[in-house]
Amino acid sequence: MRKAGLLLGGCVRSWKSVRMASSGVARRDLLANKVALVTASTDGIGLAIARRLAQDGAHVVVSSRKQQNVDRAVAALQGEGLSVTGTVCHVGKAEDRERLVTTILGINVKAMALMTKAVVPEMEKRGGGSVVIVASIAAYTPFPGLGPYNVSKTALLGLGKNLAMELAQSNIRVNCLAPGIIKTNFSQVLWMDEAREESLKEMLRIKRLGVPEDCAGIVSFLCSEDASYITGETVTVAGGAPSRL
Amino acid sequence: MRKAGLLLGGCVRSWKSVRMASSGVARRDLLANKVALVTASTDGIGLAIARRLAQDGAHVVVSSRKQQNVDRAVAALQGEGLSVTGTVCHVGKAEDRERLVTTILGINVKAMALMTKAVVPEMEKRGGGSVVIVASIAAYTPFPGLGPYNVSKTALLGLGKNLAMELAQSNIRVNCLAPGIIKTNFSQVLWMDEAREESLKEMLRIKRLGVPEDCAGIVSFLCSEDASYITGETVTVAGGAPSRL
Amino acid sequence: MRKAGLLLGGCVRSWKSVRMASSGVARRDLLANKVALVTASTDGIGLAIARRLAQDGAHVVVSSRKQQNVDRAVAALQGEGLSVTGTVCHVGKAEDRERLVTTILGINVKAMALMTKAVVPEMEKRGGGSVVIVASIAAYTPFPGLGPYNVSKTALLGLGKNLAMELAQSNIRVNCLAPGIIKTNFSQVLWMDEAREESLKEMLRIKRLGVPEDCAGIVSFLCSEDASYITGETVTVAGGAPSRL
Amino acid sequence: MRKAGLLLGGCVRSWKSVRMASSGVARRDLLANKVALVTASTDGIGLAIARRLAQDGAHVVVSSRKQQNVDRAVAALQGEGLSVTGTVCHVGKAEDRERLVTTILGINVKAMALMTKAVVPEMEKRGGGSVVIVASIAAYTPFPGLGPYNVSKTALLGLGKNLAMELAQSNIRVNCLAPGIIKTNFSQVLWMDEAREESLKEMLRIKRLGVPEDCAGIVSFLCSEDASYITGETVTVAGGAPSRL
Repeated sequence: MRKAGLLLGGCVRSWKSVRMASSGVARRDLLANKVALVTASTDGIGLAIARRLAQDGAHVVVSSRKQQNVDRAVAALQGEGLSVTGTVCHVGKAEDRERLVTTILGINVKAMALMTKAVVPEMEKRGGGSVVIVASIAAYTPFPGLGPYNVSKTALLGLGKNLAMELAQSNIRVNCLAPGIIKTNFSQVLWMDEAREESLKEMLRIKRLGVPEDCAGIVSFLCSEDASYITGETVTVAGGAPSRL
Repeated sequence: MRKAGLLLGGCVRSWKSVRMASSGVARRDLLANKVALVTASTDGIGLAIARRLAQDGAHVVVSSRKQQNVDRAVAALQGEGLSVTGTVCHVGKAEDRERLVTTILGINVKAMALMTKAVVPEMEKRGGGSVVIVASIAAYTPFPGLGPYNVSKTALLGLGKNLAMELAQSNIRVNCLAPGIIKTNFSQVLWMDEAREESLKEMLRIKRLGVPEDCAGIVSFLCSEDASYITGETVTVAGGAPSRL
Repeated sequence: MRKAGLLLGGCVRSWKSVRMASSGVARRDLLANKVALVTASTDGIGLAIARRLAQDGAHVVVSSRKQQNVDRAVAALQGEGLSVTGTVCHVGKAEDRERLVTTILGINVKAMALMTKAVVPEMEKRGGGSVVIVASIAAYTPFPGLGPYNVSKTALLGLGKNLAMELAQSNIRVNCLAPGIIKTNFSQVLWMDEAREESLKEMLRIKRLGVPEDCAGIVSFLCSEDASYITGETVTVAGGAPSRL
Repeated sequence: MRKAGLLLGGCVRSWKSVRMASSGVARRDLLANKVALVTASTDGIGLAIARRLAQDGAHVVVSSRKQQNVDRAVAALQGEGLSVTGTVCHVGKAEDRERLVTTILGINVKAMALMTKAVVPEMEKRGGGSVVIVASIAAYTPFPGLGPYNVSKTALLGLGKNLAMELAQSNIRVNCLAPGIIKTNFSQVLWMDEAREESLKEMLRIKRLGVPEDCAGIVSFLCSEDASYITGETVTVAGGAPSRL
């Protein structure tokens, strides 16, 4: 279970204008000359992904709804020598956003669709791009007591298929990530008592809960040229929990 | 592709008070003493399902948003000697509904969830029931140009999984039907020129488009006692079009 | 878990020559004038399916590898007034069969493919037919300690897709059934100690293990005209255990 | 469609004894100190994967059934400065192998299972490893005319799930790759006339057939530490062809 926000791993090629001055860290060149906008990225899975994309050479734009969270995350990542800037996320006009946030379905699905549409022109100008939508294993097997969250995650799988179809002509690939149970503030309720954590582990093949970093490498991979023939797919990162064939 | 409405094949046991006087037609007893509420059932797939459930012995409540459509369908089915009454469908309060209908996602997912919740107490009183949600094969492989429709159908698959989990303790089973391309007014745009129809057929194993009646038998089956160990599943009725393993 | 045998619910139209004299029981006409060959049908799920198909009006040919088991099942079903005959199942020549039975993969997949091919000419002569392959939920989520069984069940899902494609032109539909944990002699090891049965039930939505009869209605349905637009699909009968979207 | 062989991307940690002397090419360190055994790797997808794993820092053991093919591939890769050795693949004893190769199902499924079991002790000694099985999109949607091939690929998806379950305790992860239509000698029949290639492309979102290199990056990723929470999953590399949700 993760924050009811969104992740947009939109890697835009060579958006040079926003590149920061070079930093001291050694970087792999996987995502060199790319810009990544990562929404809901001030902690948990989003933050781990933002850090990883920056470590792999992208300039990363960290985003969230609260200015102070954005500032804190940007400072932390810049302190690690990474090329990062921040922005507060606006989903359309304020009044629209108000209405959107009234429902998790709205937040998770419509906002994701709107965000993607918003960055498409920018990606098209650069000749293409890559979008990674963070769904959840709850899209396949619902978490108890979290109906709207679960349904919104299933809907995201459909959104990924649709955007992959619509954006292929613009050379934009769209894939989904379906994390299992990852230890974050948001999922705390699921694992904070030990008995519950043990019972969760029994459904897993790998006998530990995930950490946000487990989700970061695959996003970097999906944004890279190595994934240029992969679109409309979902990769599950869940320690072997039952998902699908 | 079918009407952006919903189908709720909620078969409630022995809701005797609304049974009509017996009719002259011979009926199988599969759904005897059950009441079926079928939404969006004044034409196309919904109407075929309503007719079939009534032929199989249920008392059927036909429902739609327009009074005149309801009246026409009820008259037609009663003319066939079937036990049918009608109601105009209200999804919550008018103002809520207004907001809901602003989006297909709202219509298809939230309304379905609300409708189900609304009939649950009635089903519980009778000791259980069965819900069949009409999704679409577009939930798996999107129809071009119909993004919100497609995504809402994917979301319905998730809704089915969630309701199956939540309602099992009330002895209510929840399953989905995923029709392929069925010849209805609603899907007309997909098949009305012949070349297009031919190209659609090429993706099918069975070389014809479906008809609404193709969807009716499985709904009756899923509402019957024969399906008492089936919940949380989706049955695809699509002439062998690619769906999933 | 069920017997490593096969089920072939091939309903052939009006194979009148083998119909037995009419019996006293009242029957529904769903499968009137059809002949059903049910393999591995002398107990458990296969027997329940054979009984149901006969009750629904088909003439049923019960089959198994041992003469005495066939005789016992035929006698029992005839004693219920059903139209049933028996045959010992030969999968090709004896020496081929020997080699086949050396592996579960062989038994479950190749034998199923060979059997189907063997009955196809008969079905074609009658204008079409229906095949139902009994796979298992273990095809999606493996049962511990039963690797070859599990893999063979996954392979059967693929076989169903392939046969559906190949046989559609002969008007033969092919579908799969994926039972969950059904109480049979074969699955005994999974549920015979009570603690184990309880832990199994926890993964289910419907809090009981299945019985063979839970699998019978859907096979009858899939063999009937009501399913004439359903091919290449799998229906899971598993009390809501996690399977797939 | 690809060679009816297998790929075993078993990356074993620090099998130093077989490391070759360092070469002149700059390498990323993703797979440093790992040994990769790649079966059926003397051309096509297998060769592309072998090359990529070596470029990413692994020592690669190229393997195939014919000595001369192995020699040629080893020479080519060593000529690129990569750390590669070769071996002719023996699946068990000769007589067993004879029987195995009589069927594609045998080759693709049993041989894969046997190979994996054979390398497990080696991986266990080193504390863990990673296996990548090359299935095919034909596992989900069969290629016409290739029944046994298709079914064997579906079976491989099940094998992946089973091995993931069985080997997790040995810290060995097992995943599948499902390539779409990749331009290789083996798949030539599918695309060599231009009209056919065009019609294939119509089912894709990305309007080109794949090349072997499209499959290489994901295998390297799945063998790396970045994928340490991914097991029992299948990644489809198929240009957006319909697969599954």
